[in-house]
Amino acid sequence: MGQSAYRTHYATEVTEAEIGKDVTVSGWVDRRRDHGGVAFIDLRDQTGLVQIVIYDEEIARPLRSEFVVEIKGEVRARPDGNENTHLATGKIEIVARDVTILAKSEALPFQVSTALENESENKLPGEDTRLKYRYLDLRRPAMQRTIRMRAKMSKAAREALDEMNFCEIETPTLIKSTPEGARDFLVPARLIPGSWYALPQSPQLLKQLLMVSGFEKYYQLARCYRDEDFRADRQPEFTQLDIEMSFVDQEDVMAMAEKVIANIWKSAGFEVKLPIPRISWTDAMNKYGSDKPDLRFGNQIVELTDYFKNTPFRVFQNPYVGAVVYKGGASLPRRQFDAWQEWAKQRGAKGLAYVQFEEDGNLKGPVAKNLSDAERNGLKEAVHAENGDAVFFAAGRRETSQLLLGAVRVEIARRQGLLKPDEFALTWVVDFPLFKQADDPDDDDVAVGHSKWTSMHHPFTMPSADWIDNFDQDPEHAMSDSYDIVCNGEEIGGGSVRIHRDDIQNRVLKVLGITPEEAQEKFGFLLDAFKFGAPPHAGIALGWDRTAQLLAGVGSIRDVIAFPKLGSGQDALTGAPAPITDAQRAETGVDYDPDEDED
Amino acid sequence: MGQSAYRTHYATEVTEAEIGKDVTVSGWVDRRRDHGGVAFIDLRDQTGLVQIVIYDEEIARPLRSEFVVEIKGEVRARPDGNENTHLATGKIEIVARDVTILAKSEALPFQVSTALENESENKLPGEDTRLKYRYLDLRRPAMQRTIRMRAKMSKAAREALDEMNFCEIETPTLIKSTPEGARDFLVPARLIPGSWYALPQSPQLLKQLLMVSGFEKYYQLARCYRDEDFRADRQPEFTQLDIEMSFVDQEDVMAMAEKVIANIWKSAGFEVKLPIPRISWTDAMNKYGSDKPDLRFGNQIVELTDYFKNTPFRVFQNPYVGAVVYKGGASLPRRQFDAWQEWAKQRGAKGLAYVQFEEDGNLKGPVAKNLSDAERNGLKEAVHAENGDAVFFAAGRRETSQLLLGAVRVEIARRQGLLKPDEFALTWVVDFPLFKQADDPDDDDVAVGHSKWTSMHHPFTMPSADWIDNFDQDPEHAMSDSYDIVCNGEEIGGGSVRIHRDDIQNRVLKVLGITPEEAQEKFGFLLDAFKFGAPPHAGIALGWDRTAQLLAGVGSIRDVIAFPKLGSGQDALTGAPAPITDAQRAETGVDYDPDEDED
Repeated sequence: MGQSAYRTHYATEVTEAEIGKDVTVSGWVDRRRDHGGVAFIDLRDQTGLVQIVIYDEEIARPLRSEFVVEIKGEVRARPDGNENTHLATGKIEIVARDVTILAKSEALPFQVSTALENESENKLPGEDTRLKYRYLDLRRPAMQRTIRMRAKMSKAAREALDEMNFCEIETPTLIKSTPEGARDFLVPARLIPGSWYALPQSPQLLKQLLMVSGFEKYYQLARCYRDEDFRADRQPEFTQLDIEMSFVDQEDVMAMAEKVIANIWKSAGFEVKLPIPRISWTDAMNKYGSDKPDLRFGNQIVELTDYFKNTPFRVFQNPYVGAVVYKGGASLPRRQFDAWQEWAKQRGAKGLAYVQFEEDGNLKGPVAKNLSDAERNGLKEAVHAENGDAVFFAAGRRETSQLLLGAVRVEIARRQGLLKPDEFALTWVVDFPLFKQADDPDDDDVAVGHSKWTSMHHPFTMPSADWIDNFDQDPEHAMSDSYDIVCNGEEIGGGSVRIHRDDIQNRVLKVLGITPEEAQEKFGFLLDAFKFGAPPHAGIALGWDRTAQLLAGVGSIRDVIAFPKLGSGQDALTGAPAPITDAQRAETGVDYDPDEDED
Repeated sequence: MGQSAYRTHYATEVTEAEIGKDVTVSGWVDRRRDHGGVAFIDLRDQTGLVQIVIYDEEIARPLRSEFVVEIKGEVRARPDGNENTHLATGKIEIVARDVTILAKSEALPFQVSTALENESENKLPGEDTRLKYRYLDLRRPAMQRTIRMRAKMSKAAREALDEMNFCEIETPTLIKSTPEGARDFLVPARLIPGSWYALPQSPQLLKQLLMVSGFEKYYQLARCYRDEDFRADRQPEFTQLDIEMSFVDQEDVMAMAEKVIANIWKSAGFEVKLPIPRISWTDAMNKYGSDKPDLRFGNQIVELTDYFKNTPFRVFQNPYVGAVVYKGGASLPRRQFDAWQEWAKQRGAKGLAYVQFEEDGNLKGPVAKNLSDAERNGLKEAVHAENGDAVFFAAGRRETSQLLLGAVRVEIARRQGLLKPDEFALTWVVDFPLFKQADDPDDDDVAVGHSKWTSMHHPFTMPSADWIDNFDQDPEHAMSDSYDIVCNGEEIGGGSVRIHRDDIQNRVLKVLGITPEEAQEKFGFLLDAFKFGAPPHAGIALGWDRTAQLLAGVGSIRDVIAFPKLGSGQDALTGAPAPITDAQRAETGVDYDPDEDED
C-alpha cells in the first residue's frame, strides 16, 4: 500500500510481520527522545507513528521536530518491557541505517505532535494563530480526523444516492443575481463592462430547471455563497448536499433523505433509527420554543395563557404566558437568578420572571407575591414542577415569548450537562406556514418583495394541497409542503415541494409584492421553463459544514473546513481579500462609463 | 425502483412480467399517433419510452407533445405484429384508464422527441437557441446520455481514488489573487471595502499547503475560473479533477493517474491498455509538430534541414526545414492546393510549399523547379513518399515550422477520415523544459514576472534532478519533472513534481523576474509554509470538461456541461451577466474612497 519512491511501508504498516526485514519509511519527526547517546524518533505519516532508533549520534544530531525525513533500516522487536500498547506499531522499532533529511523545519509557532494529543488542548494558541498557520494546525491528529471524517461523509452520501440512481450534475457558479433572501457576492464581467455575475446562494433555480429537463433525480455537493454580515459561525462560502427529484411528493423526498442521512451517520460510526420522528412547526414552537428543537432532552414549555387569564399580575396580562421548569433550580443562589436576567436582556427580553418551589413547598421569588392565591396554589401542578425546582416565565407576543422560553430550555440543559455531543436527536419539522411577516425582527434576511409577507422557505415553495386555491386570500394561515431536518437544535437541512406551474408561481410572487416585470427580469427563465411541461418536483439540501460539525462533535464549522475564513471574511493564512492593482481594476470594467463612448 | 407518489413503475420497468397488472406511470408525451379514433402515446421518462393506448377520445383530445401526464392503466401484450423490437418495452402497452395532466406545454421552439433521435440532427436550431432553451435541449436523449456519462466518469474517478486511499478535501474559492498564467475573476469584498477576492484558476497553492499539512493523498473535483478572452471552446468556469500526493516522484503519480484514467474510460465503455505510452516533449515536437500529438494515426513529420543544407532555394535556406506527406494527394486539383495556402495563411504562415509525385514518378508543383537536381532526385526517398503522394514543406524557425507541419498533419488526417471519435490514442508527454520564452507568440498566457523566461507549466514545478543545481545558470536548457496526458491531440491533463523547498522556489522565482517583495506579497504564505517541513510532493489535474467531451465524442465542451456559457461569457438562458442596481453596487464597496473618511 505505502509503496512509493520514498517508502516501502506506511508507518503503521510496519508490524511484527516485518521483523528482520529492511524497510523504508518517510514522514515527520513527531517527537525525539535521547537515552544514553541513542536517539528515539517517533516518525509520523498520515497513518500514524512508528519508532525509529538511531545509534549514530552524528546522524541523529541535526534532527528536530517536524523535519521531514526518509529512513531506511531494519525492523526489530522492541526490547522486553519497552513495548507501547497504545500504538499499532508498539511492539517493533526500526533501527535506522540511512537517514535522509528531505526538508528542515524552523521552530514551530505551536506544537502539533501526536504525542500531545491526549494532553489538554490548552496549549493551543488562539484561533487567529491556528488559522494563520493553518497548514500546521491541520497536522494535528484532531484536525486530520475531522477533515477525513468529512470526506467519508461525502462518500457515504454519494453511495446512498448512487444506490437510488441519482445523477450528479454540476451547475454553474457564475450566474445571474436572483433573490433568495440574502446578499449576493458579485463578480464584474470584464467582457461585458457594466455587467456582473452573481455567485449562487444555492443551485435552487438551476436544479429546478434540471427537473424541467427531465433529469428526475439530481444531486450535487454544491458550493454556495452568501455575503452576510458574518455571524459567529457562518462562512461566506459553504457547501450543501443539494438534491432534487421529479414525480415525487414530500413523503418520497423524506424517505430518500432518511436513507442518505442514515448512511452519513453510519460513516461516522453512529446509527440512526428510521423513520426519523416528526413534529409540526406549531408543536415545535409550542413545546420547544424553536423551529429547530433540541430533542436530546425533554422539559417541554408549558403554556399558561389560560391559567393566568384572570391574573392580577400585569406582566402576565398578555396574549401568551408560558413557563419552563429548571429541575432542582430552587436552591440556586440569588446571584445566579440575577445573571439569568442579564442573559435574557442580552437576547432582547426585558428580563426573566421566575419562582422557586422550595423543598418545604414554599413558593419564593419575585413573581410569587404578585400572583393570586389560587394561582400560587395550583402553579406547581400546572407547570409539572416539584419541590426544589425553579420555574422561568415569559409573557408577551406568542412567538417572541416562545423563542425566549426555548432558549431558556436549552440553556438550562447546557448547565445541567444534558447537551451530549455524541448523542444525536434527529427530527423532521413539518407543516410550515407558507409565508411569514416580512418585518420579523428575528430574521435578518433581506425581504424579497414589497409586501408585508415574505416566504418562510423561499418563493418557489408549493402551498399545501388544501391551500392551492386560496393561499393568496389568507397568506397568514396558508401552509406549505416543506420540511426541515433538525439535529440537536441545529437545522441541518430543509426542503420543499416546489411550484411547477407558472400560474401558481405568479400568484405567490404577487403575495410577496413582486411585480410581473420584476419577476420576469429576475427569473423569467424559470417562469418561461414552466410553460413547456414542468413535472411536479421536490427536493432538499443538507448543510454540509454544519452536519460535519455535529458529527465531528467540534465547536465550530471552522473546524470541519480545511481553510476557513474569519468572521470578517478574511483569510488569516493568505491575507485574502486584498487590494488589486490599478491595471486589474481597469480590466474588471467596474469603472466603465457607457457615456464615454459617445464623446 | 420507480415507486413514488406519481408512479408504480418507470417506463422501462413495464415489461412482459407486468402483463395483466395495473400500473401507474408518469412522464412526458414524447409522441402521439392516432389510428381509427384510438390515441397511441409514447410516454417518456428518464428511463425511456412506454406505449400508452387511449380509447376514450375525450380523454385523449387535449394531450399534446411534452405535456406532463400521469397514466393509470392495465398492461397488455401488444397485438401480434405491433411489437417494436427497438424498444425495451416494445412487446407491451398500457391501456389507459385514468389520465391526469400534471402540466401542459406550449408548442416547443424545437423538437426534443426521442422518436427523432435517429433522424438527422439537422432539425436542431442554432446553438444560441438550444442554449436559450437549455431546459428543453437537455431533454433530448443525446444530451441526457452525455450528462449522465459525465456523472459516471466522476463516480469512476472517485472509486479509483478511494481504492487508493485518497482523501477528498474541499478548498476555498474566495481566495487571494495569485499569478498562474491567466487573468483572475475578482470579487469585491463588501466587509473590507477596497479589497477583493479572486476566484481560483486552480487549487494549486492550496493543495500544496495540504501536502505541507500532512494530507498525503488529496483529490477534489474542483471548480476553476479563468477570465480569458474566450476562445472557441473555453468556458469562464470549468472543472478539473485535482490530485496531489506526498512522498512520491513522477513515476508514482503517473502510475496512479493511469489507474484513474483506465477506470474513467471503462465507465464510458472503453478499455485503456496500460501502461500508457510515453513520448518526450522534444520527440513530440520533432515527429508530430505538437506538444499534444494525435497518435490515432502515424504520418510523422520528416526533418529535411540537413537534406537541404546546400539548397539553392532561398525559402529553404533556414534553420529548419521539414515536410509532411499527403498520401495520395498528388492528384488533388490545383484549387485544393490553393485552398491549403489560404488555410496556412489563416494560421499565420506565409503559405505552404508543396510538391506532387505524379503516378509516373514526375515531380510537379511550384517548389519543384527551385530545387537542385540532386534534391529533386532524392526527395521521394528522403520524405518516405511514393508516387501519387503530395508533400507539404515548412521552413523557418524550428518550433514555428514544426507547429505548422503538425497542424498540416492533423488536417490531412481529418480530410482522410482518420480522426475517429471512438478510437482513443492516449500518450504521456514527458521531459518538458522548465522555462520557455516569455514572448512566445503562440501563447496568450500572461507572463508572470519581468524576465524573458516564463514557466512552461507553472512557477511551482520542480527542475529535474540533473538541473536542480544549475537551472538558473542555463534556463534555456533546464528540464523539469513534469508530464502531460494527451488523448487524440488534446491535452486532457498535466502535472509535475512540485518544489517543496523555499530555496529552490526562490531561485525559480528569480529566473522568472519576480522580486522577493512581489513573491512575498503574492504567495508568501506558501514560501512560509515551506519553512516548517514540507514533504516532497507531486500531482496532476485532469480537465474534466475536455475529458468528458472526448469520451462522449461530441464536438464541443458545451455539450458536456448542463448550463454552459457562450463565447462572450454570456448565459443565453438567464441573461447573466447583467447590470446591478445602484444599491447593489454601493454595497459591493467598489466605489469606496479611503480618503473620504478623512474629510
